[in-house]
Amino acid sequence: MAEKSKILIIGGTGYIGKFIVEASAKSGHPTFALVRESTVSDPAKAKLIDGFKRSGVTLLHGDLNDHGSLVKSIKQVDVVISTVGATLILDQAKIIAAIKEAGNVKRFFPSEFGNDVDRVHAVEPTQTTYMKKVKIRRAIEAEGIPYTYVSSNYFAGYFLPNLGQLELSAPPRDKVIIPGDGNPKAIINDEHDIGTFTIKTVDDPRSLNKILYIKPPKNIYSFNELVSLWEKKIGKTLERIYVPEDAVLKQIQESPVPFNDIHGINHSVFVKGGQTNFKIEPSFGVEASELYPDVKYTTVEEYLDQFV
Amino acid sequence: MAEKSKILIIGGTGYIGKFIVEASAKSGHPTFALVRESTVSDPAKAKLIDGFKRSGVTLLHGDLNDHGSLVKSIKQVDVVISTVGATLILDQAKIIAAIKEAGNVKRFFPSEFGNDVDRVHAVEPTQTTYMKKVKIRRAIEAEGIPYTYVSSNYFAGYFLPNLGQLELSAPPRDKVIIPGDGNPKAIINDEHDIGTFTIKTVDDPRSLNKILYIKPPKNIYSFNELVSLWEKKIGKTLERIYVPEDAVLKQIQESPVPFNDIHGINHSVFVKGGQTNFKIEPSFGVEASELYPDVKYTTVEEYLDQFV
Repeated sequence: MAEKSKILIIGGTGYIGKFIVEASAKSGHPTFALVRESTVSDPAKAKLIDGFKRSGVTLLHGDLNDHGSLVKSIKQVDVVISTVGATLILDQAKIIAAIKEAGNVKRFFPSEFGNDVDRVHAVEPTQTTYMKKVKIRRAIEAEGIPYTYVSSNYFAGYFLPNLGQLELSAPPRDKVIIPGDGNPKAIINDEHDIGTFTIKTVDDPRSLNKILYIKPPKNIYSFNELVSLWEKKIGKTLERIYVPEDAVLKQIQESPVPFNDIHGINHSVFVKGGQTNFKIEPSFGVEASELYPDVKYTTVEEYLDQFV
Repeated sequence: MAEKSKILIIGGTGYIGKFIVEASAKSGHPTFALVRESTVSDPAKAKLIDGFKRSGVTLLHGDLNDHGSLVKSIKQVDVVISTVGATLILDQAKIIAAIKEAGNVKRFFPSEFGNDVDRVHAVEPTQTTYMKKVKIRRAIEAEGIPYTYVSSNYFAGYFLPNLGQLELSAPPRDKVIIPGDGNPKAIINDEHDIGTFTIKTVDDPRSLNKILYIKPPKNIYSFNELVSLWEKKIGKTLERIYVPEDAVLKQIQESPVPFNDIHGINHSVFVKGGQTNFKIEPSFGVEASELYPDVKYTTVEEYLDQFV
C-alpha cells in the first residue's frame, strides 16, 4: 500500500476546516495546519488548537500575505486543502502562486464546500459570492494545478438544528417559514462526513481534476419533505407559511450583511433547486457515496433525532 | 469659518461605511474613499460606487496590504475613518503604521460603530471579537494618534425590521422570541444618523481622544418596551416567549458562524444590558445628541412606522 499523502490545511480552525483537519489526522495522513499568529493567541480557538496537537497535527505558523512562509509550508506536503472563509476566497490567488512556485503539489482543494458554483444560479449579492469561487477555479485550471472541487452542498449544522428558522435553537414545533413552494430538492450533509469524504478522495485518481459531489441518497430532501419528516418524529403537524419568491427576493435586497447572502443562498437552493437541478456527468464530476460506499454517513433522519 | 477637514474613509463600501461616506459628502467635507480593485469590479457594488462618484467622492485605489498606496492616500487628507468589516479589525494595525508614517492625520476613527468594547462584557467567541477592537484602541493610544471611538450601539437596520426574529422580513405579528427577561435597555440608531453624528464630530475638539456615544434619549428601549411599542402600533398583543439565559448561552456555544457571534452580541446587549449599564463620564466620553442637539435623528418609534 502506498504511503499516505501529507496534507496541509489552510483555514483549518474555521467552521468546515476543523472537520477536515480532524478527518485527516484520524485517517493517518500526516496532517499540517497553517495558522496565523493571531489565531494561535485567540482564546476562542485555544481548545480547538489543543485538540489538533493531541491528534498529532503539526501546526505551521504563517499567513496568506507572507509568500515565503506559504511556499515553505507547501513544500513540506503533497496535498493542499484550503478552507479559508468567505472574505478570503479571492486571496487564494496567493496560494495558487505559492503552489506554482513550490512545484511539488499533487492536488489542490480550493475552499469550496458548498454548491457547485459553475452550475448554481443566484441573484446579487450572492451571485458575486459564487463568482469569486468560479474565478479561483479558472485560475487553478489556467495554471495546470491538479485539483478536486468538493461540492458538499448544505452543512447540516447550519440548517437542521432549527430547520432554517434562524433565531431558534431547536427545530420549530408550531409553525415553519418556508421560502418558495418548498418543493425543490436540497442536499444536507453532516460536517464530519464532509471531512471524511474529502480526505478519502485525496489520493484517489477518480476525483482528480473533477468535482466531488457529496450527494448521498438519504440526504436529499425538499423543504416540504424535511418538515414532514420532522412532523413524523414529533407526532405533530406544523403550520407551513410559504414566502412567495417575490418576497424572498425583496428580503435579499433589503437585508444587511450577512443576512442578504444567507437568504440569497437559501433562495438558490430551496427556491431554485440549485443543488439538484443538473445531472452529474462523468466528464466533470463524481459522487462521493458511490465512490466510497463503505463510509457510513449520518443521514438527515438520524441527525434530526437529537432534537426530538 | 475654518475650512472643512478632508476625510478618507477606508471600508466605505461596507455596511456602515456607505452611510458615513454619504454623510461626509453631503456635509461638504472633501471626501475620499479607499477601494480595492476587486471592489471596483464587483457588480454587487457598482450602484453604490456610481452613487459615490455622483456625490463628488474621490475614489482612491488601494489596499490595506499595500503600505505605499495607503500612506499616499492618507497624506492627501486630514482625517481617516475606518469602517472595515469584522474580519479586518486587527489588520487596522496596518492603517496605524501608515498614519504614523504619513504624520499629517489630525484624527483617526477606527472601525468601531457598535458597543463600547472597553465596558461591554461578553462570553466567547464574542468576547474575543470585542477584544480585537480593544487591541486596536490600545495601539492607537500607544502611538499617540489623535482619535475618536464612535460607540453607535445597535444598527436599526439589523434589529428593527424583524425585531430580532432573524428569518422574518417584517416584525412579527403573532409571537416574539426574547432572550433573557427582556428588561435591560438597549440603544438602537438609524444608520443615516450614525453617519451624520460621526461626520459632525470630525472637527470638534470636544470629542478628541474620547468615545462618542450615540445614545439619543428616544432610542433607548428594553426588548419588552420595543414589543409593547410595536403592539401599540399594530393594535395587537403578541405572545412573548422568553429564552432563559442558560439556553441563550448554549445557543451561542452550539451555533455556527456567524450566528454564534450574533447570539453572543444579543446576549451582551439584551441579557446583560451592556449598552446602558454604565455611566458616560466626561473623562472618557461625550454623548452625540447632547453635543449636536440640532440633528433631527430618526427615532425608533418613527423607524417602526414603515412596517405597520
